[in-house]
Amino acid sequence: MARHALITYHKLYVHNLDQGVRRVALFSQTEYESRLHRVKDRMAHDGLDALIIADPANMNYLTGYDGWSFYVPQVVIVAQTRTEPLWIGRLQDSNGARLTCWISESSIKPYPDLYVQSTVRHPMDYVAQVLHEEHLDQGKIGLEMDAYYFTAASYVHLKDQLSRATLVDATLLVNWIRIVKSSQELEYIRQAGKLVTQAMQTAMTVIRPGIREADAAATIMHAQIAGVQDISGDYPAIVPLMPSNERTGAAHLTWTDRRYQTGDALNIEIAGCVHRYHAPLSRSAVIGEPSSKLTELAKVVVEGVNTALSAVRPGLTCGEVADAWTKTIERYGYSKESRLGYSVGLNYPPDWGEHTASLRAGDPTILQPNMVFHLIAGMWLDGYGLEVSEGFVVTPTGCEVLANIDRQLFVIND
Amino acid sequence: MARHALITYHKLYVHNLDQGVRRVALFSQTEYESRLHRVKDRMAHDGLDALIIADPANMNYLTGYDGWSFYVPQVVIVAQTRTEPLWIGRLQDSNGARLTCWISESSIKPYPDLYVQSTVRHPMDYVAQVLHEEHLDQGKIGLEMDAYYFTAASYVHLKDQLSRATLVDATLLVNWIRIVKSSQELEYIRQAGKLVTQAMQTAMTVIRPGIREADAAATIMHAQIAGVQDISGDYPAIVPLMPSNERTGAAHLTWTDRRYQTGDALNIEIAGCVHRYHAPLSRSAVIGEPSSKLTELAKVVVEGVNTALSAVRPGLTCGEVADAWTKTIERYGYSKESRLGYSVGLNYPPDWGEHTASLRAGDPTILQPNMVFHLIAGMWLDGYGLEVSEGFVVTPTGCEVLANIDRQLFVIND
Repeated sequence: MARHALITYHKLYVHNLDQGVRRVALFSQTEYESRLHRVKDRMAHDGLDALIIADPANMNYLTGYDGWSFYVPQVVIVAQTRTEPLWIGRLQDSNGARLTCWISESSIKPYPDLYVQSTVRHPMDYVAQVLHEEHLDQGKIGLEMDAYYFTAASYVHLKDQLSRATLVDATLLVNWIRIVKSSQELEYIRQAGKLVTQAMQTAMTVIRPGIREADAAATIMHAQIAGVQDISGDYPAIVPLMPSNERTGAAHLTWTDRRYQTGDALNIEIAGCVHRYHAPLSRSAVIGEPSSKLTELAKVVVEGVNTALSAVRPGLTCGEVADAWTKTIERYGYSKESRLGYSVGLNYPPDWGEHTASLRAGDPTILQPNMVFHLIAGMWLDGYGLEVSEGFVVTPTGCEVLANIDRQLFVIND
Repeated sequence: MARHALITYHKLYVHNLDQGVRRVALFSQTEYESRLHRVKDRMAHDGLDALIIADPANMNYLTGYDGWSFYVPQVVIVAQTRTEPLWIGRLQDSNGARLTCWISESSIKPYPDLYVQSTVRHPMDYVAQVLHEEHLDQGKIGLEMDAYYFTAASYVHLKDQLSRATLVDATLLVNWIRIVKSSQELEYIRQAGKLVTQAMQTAMTVIRPGIREADAAATIMHAQIAGVQDISGDYPAIVPLMPSNERTGAAHLTWTDRRYQTGDALNIEIAGCVHRYHAPLSRSAVIGEPSSKLTELAKVVVEGVNTALSAVRPGLTCGEVADAWTKTIERYGYSKESRLGYSVGLNYPPDWGEHTASLRAGDPTILQPNMVFHLIAGMWLDGYGLEVSEGFVVTPTGCEVLANIDRQLFVIND
């Protein structure tokens, strides 16, 4: 009987691919080429010969690669001398690269499993070796120094072995290219908007006195993935954040196994996600009669959000949008320490934000059509809190809100 | 009207806490102290004065901290001169620290939002400042160099500002302390085993010809969280991995919006999760008649898994368990390039594995009672694949399997 060793068989699989096993293309080849072209332009501007990309969203953006494999080191390398990016990842994920990336077999470089969580070798040793073999181990190389999953150890291993190269920080280089969305990206984001609308409606229906928080979370997550009619959901980069009562004073708590009861207050922050593109949304609710404190806060927050959204138009800075919010709530004696929002789009856990523009005082980013933001008016106060947020697309004349949910403090009948 | 500024109000909230707002304690104070004691012992052995912990699971293990806030830099610091660990995180998450940690107010050090995703300052600058103020900026300081979320930039910022200290790699120091579980930890893990049993039964029931993969995923996720009777689920560190057909040759693909049909083959890898403790489980299935190729592979894999599980007992090494598997499948002409499993327990996305012991040839870790592993016989071959896995606890005489699901290739009626 023949030996079934993966290490030899993956080549046969490529053969199968050539015979027509499908790769689902989410974007046109032209769009991938345009993305790569813009990244290379920016690299040329910064004098970079190569760019080592560890951010899973940036890897996906440039190659299409999609898999929950970012828990081991993996990179995409863009080089001025190469037409295609290189994908380097774990051998058992290389078939995933073949199935999801547009790049050819010669650009897929798997490392053996003995590099994984080993005490004697590190996957970045393999990356350095590939750079050497491809004559990419010199010149000026950009690193995503502050990207998730590009650990300190990854950096030290690369630095030790790339002594002929000049390593420079290129954090967010690709993220800034991503900030203006294409029409295909906007289509997925608008679909995600439909999903999150449905998921929030589900939340406001399922939450009732006597229901466990976990059961509500389960139902919301079901709605996020099952989606609507012909649109199903991908996993959002963040699970439902849904603290209740004193926990609403904290921004990032999830559910517990307690049962809702009359008098509860709660925040819900969720997203719809289609092909990794997000439309986030937050609302707060009370079960039974809201306190006058919360009613008043909600009135102010909604007015602030309305004012900020009305201000949005191309040419304004992100800082100016935040200022419109701040002036409104200050009139009522409120302030908010944290930023009002951020650019959003293609992403993986642990964050759907793009880490580029923020809606906060002084941010100089000038709004352009087809940028997408999550404007989140989250007030996390002394033992209570409130969230009203909207995802929106900047249009030629203003903005288009992605979800379609009343902008108010929801009152759930007890 | 009074100004409602979070930056001042969080102190009132502590006041509220003192007046009896509940913190849910998942472990006894004795257990937290024992964990801390063992970490400090190990630090003393390694000559460490302080340890800066960025791994969210290690932060939780030592303080109880639980929140989806690891998308911004945050750390827990253990110092030989301090009784309690320090928690340093974003201001809007500090109420979350107050609600989930056992440490006192003076050990919670929030940084303002202007450090978040800023181009001019980094949260690690704040961490260095706290170390300075607490007289912890000298001596030998351990860093988790290869922990998720401890980025290269985090390291460079700390290094630049801790010039009086000697920084050394202490990756996995806390993880190795975590490898033997307490009885309370095992209780949560056994509960997670019940959840994953239920979720896998749900998967094998919901998957039918005509059902969308996304709808099956939604139903499985619902089962993972809604749980059973009195046990509800926390979010697992990995979403359901459930590739079908040619995608089963890749290890980490999720669902699509295609509909299952007769003749499909699929892998399902999921976990139950209770208070962040995991019990993972994998099975493969076919819809309709399985091919003889898959039937034969399943027979071999199940025999290999049975042999490896039978071999488990305290005193054996992880490598020897892997050898039992390898010898079995080699008799049938098969081999497996990737490791057979790894230590598992408390974790956060992107991984439920602990990154310490691996079930693979040569791993010298000696099995001890109350270690917990995920033994995963994943075969990712040329256009097809198969997974049979079990979570198990090492007992004084052998092992206890966490889930209760037939160990076979499932055949779903078409």
